[in-house]
Amino acid sequence: MTDYTALDEYIQAHLPAWTGELADFCRFRSEQGDRDGLRGAAAWISARLERLGATVDVVELPGQPDVPPLVVGEIGAGSRLLNAVQHYDVQPAVPLDLWTTPPYEPAVRDGRLFARGACDNKGELLPRIWGIQAYQATVGPLPCRVRFLVEGEEEYGSGHLDALLDQRPGLRRADGALIEGGGVNQAGHPEIVGGVRGIVVVELICRTLAYDAHSSLATLLPSAPVRLAQALASLFNADGTPALEGLDDGIVPPTPAQLAVVAATPPEVVEEVRREFHVERFIGGLEGTAAVRAMTFAPTLNIQGLWSGFIGPGDKTITPAEAHARLDIRIVPDQDPARVLAALRAHLAQRGYGDIELVAEEGERAYWSPADDPILLAASRVSEAVFGRPAVRYVAMPGVAPMWQVCGRDHVPMTSLGSATVDTRAHAPDENVRLDLAADAARITARFLDEFAALA
Amino acid sequence: MTDYTALDEYIQAHLPAWTGELADFCRFRSEQGDRDGLRGAAAWISARLERLGATVDVVELPGQPDVPPLVVGEIGAGSRLLNAVQHYDVQPAVPLDLWTTPPYEPAVRDGRLFARGACDNKGELLPRIWGIQAYQATVGPLPCRVRFLVEGEEEYGSGHLDALLDQRPGLRRADGALIEGGGVNQAGHPEIVGGVRGIVVVELICRTLAYDAHSSLATLLPSAPVRLAQALASLFNADGTPALEGLDDGIVPPTPAQLAVVAATPPEVVEEVRREFHVERFIGGLEGTAAVRAMTFAPTLNIQGLWSGFIGPGDKTITPAEAHARLDIRIVPDQDPARVLAALRAHLAQRGYGDIELVAEEGERAYWSPADDPILLAASRVSEAVFGRPAVRYVAMPGVAPMWQVCGRDHVPMTSLGSATVDTRAHAPDENVRLDLAADAARITARFLDEFAALA
Repeated sequence: MTDYTALDEYIQAHLPAWTGELADFCRFRSEQGDRDGLRGAAAWISARLERLGATVDVVELPGQPDVPPLVVGEIGAGSRLLNAVQHYDVQPAVPLDLWTTPPYEPAVRDGRLFARGACDNKGELLPRIWGIQAYQATVGPLPCRVRFLVEGEEEYGSGHLDALLDQRPGLRRADGALIEGGGVNQAGHPEIVGGVRGIVVVELICRTLAYDAHSSLATLLPSAPVRLAQALASLFNADGTPALEGLDDGIVPPTPAQLAVVAATPPEVVEEVRREFHVERFIGGLEGTAAVRAMTFAPTLNIQGLWSGFIGPGDKTITPAEAHARLDIRIVPDQDPARVLAALRAHLAQRGYGDIELVAEEGERAYWSPADDPILLAASRVSEAVFGRPAVRYVAMPGVAPMWQVCGRDHVPMTSLGSATVDTRAHAPDENVRLDLAADAARITARFLDEFAALA
Repeated sequence: MTDYTALDEYIQAHLPAWTGELADFCRFRSEQGDRDGLRGAAAWISARLERLGATVDVVELPGQPDVPPLVVGEIGAGSRLLNAVQHYDVQPAVPLDLWTTPPYEPAVRDGRLFARGACDNKGELLPRIWGIQAYQATVGPLPCRVRFLVEGEEEYGSGHLDALLDQRPGLRRADGALIEGGGVNQAGHPEIVGGVRGIVVVELICRTLAYDAHSSLATLLPSAPVRLAQALASLFNADGTPALEGLDDGIVPPTPAQLAVVAATPPEVVEEVRREFHVERFIGGLEGTAAVRAMTFAPTLNIQGLWSGFIGPGDKTITPAEAHARLDIRIVPDQDPARVLAALRAHLAQRGYGDIELVAEEGERAYWSPADDPILLAASRVSEAVFGRPAVRYVAMPGVAPMWQVCGRDHVPMTSLGSATVDTRAHAPDENVRLDLAADAARITARFLDEFAALA
């Protein structure tokens, strides 16, 4: 067994300098639409990968200079290849007034670096590079190949990732893949996820009038919010469970290995959720392992936003001409976003709401590794070794990431690997990373290379 | 028959000076909560009524200095007394950037004065004063008594009007009443209304979670927008007509006179509404006189606003903790706002939505004069004389005004009387008054005094 003492010391010694370079990376305002911020971040990470010793290839979409490039960086040798799926774009920093220090002026406080992207994903990507650097400096040449795939549209649906990957043959081919990060739960247990959900985001727009009418005409004029409320109500049963016909289409039944992972999940996980949100009963009366199963295997049907007419204090006596709802539907393997959307369209049309316009904003497929894939066990082992606590495994994380685009075609097994805590405030104001945990993420990465190479 | 030639010339000659005084009145920012603006406007109109020759009494609520006073001004002699129910407060001027010139810096363009309050109600109140001044100057002493009741909370529900009226005995006793204004339709026909609707405004608040949850938990967590959509859907039939049990409670059946007014309404009135709003069919399939009847006699149930969760471009994958809807319910005689609210509460509770909080924001009763009351015929005659076109009569206007507080107890008959056009933009940016029509309103007022006195 490898002795990682020197590696851990190297990481500890370099942490102050690395904190500085993470701050440099986070100064780029790489939000969607900010060409300079995105191009700057792409150039910075390309240079950093070259400094690591990687062969770097900046992939552009021909004739589409507004599409942020995919930065590909390959390093190492050996028969096995690991794709590290990362991104250099960030969520918008607004609302700015909720930040203690400005989002693009990184600041260290209480052992944390605060900045937009400090965690997601700049502060998860750099520890992977640090782990490799430390490995090379203290253990020797890498035992496997690592290919960084660093895109610039992850926070906005990875709309061009497939096309970018298609620009170079073989970018998807690999023996395993790392999703962008990984985490530890509140009790300090590493969480290992073997997949990601897919998602369909769709806006429903109901229009009934040329413009808002004086509400005295309400006995005559069809109301957009009334029709939208009726249409939305038709999508749910009285107990709150989805009533959308076709929502389950295409679902692959759970495997024994997946069921075993679910059975091993302590029901306390959902009990905590119930208490945290002050909820008396889950919808449909779900409890314990049945709730964990539903949370794992069932698609969701969620209204994330709803708006119509006059919003705010006071009142305005109008019949609104329009009403809007935005739904997100989290899907599971092998559901097809287009089919889910078609089911929604058919459901509404059959119930007389065919006039409600559907605007699809995002559609990504789910991707789950086999629940007993060796890569998940390897990730669990190294995480347990570094954190000193048993790992908790999940079939899939609730969130969305473009793993289907990268791994789906060739069934490349994937795992999470990282140290993010629940209080990193990813996507929120005061996003931050705990620097000691960033160092741990580097330690896990280095150890994982040996485990991954040994899976051959 | 009186010769009004001198009166009309007097009005014409004084219009430039009166335009200046209307501008002065409109400079007060008499919005709710603006103590200086409200007190300033009250003092200005008191002084103006005194200059007219009225006896003025500024009525305050003892110990409530934040309640804008009721300005009472009495003028004239004779056995018959007319209450003119007016107000000096205005709607908020926001959004300010939609005004061509600032709302409290009155400006004359194209024969119109633009300012907040230029129509509603400062530009309707002053022409009444001008008409009296012109009558006194050219015809002689007033043939009846006129009592101005000028309140400062009309735009915000007239919450203290009853209490203010109670401060002085007999303020409600009168032989007739004028509602704050009156209008002419797009074809130039004066419209005479014999009543006002009542209204209940109520906010529905559905709370299901302690705070917004990540939408991946949607298989478990009860959703506020789903529950609210279901509750709202239960309030309407599939064809969009109200399904609220008890909505019709307390309605007095229409009288033959009211039915006659409705029968005389050209169905073209509703056909215009249908075309204006680009609507194929009215709800419930209403057409022609049936639609006029519904518009006149049926209470409304309207969703004026609806909001929950993430609103705006992009998406945010949350299950909202709260969902809100604001309803307005326009009621008719003799419906009681409190009973309507109780019916709504009972309806929701019976269907399992007793947890949805109801916050009542406004409640006013309807008030309708007998549809064949002589005051309405008198108002029609003088309006027809001045505008040269047949009047169109309505049982009640769709809007709300505090006529029940003033006239309800003693069944004082009321009418509208005025010259406002549909393009005055009352309540909206660029509110304005056509100055030639303001002069017409003064001419109508003067003539109406003779008609009203003759009703004895």
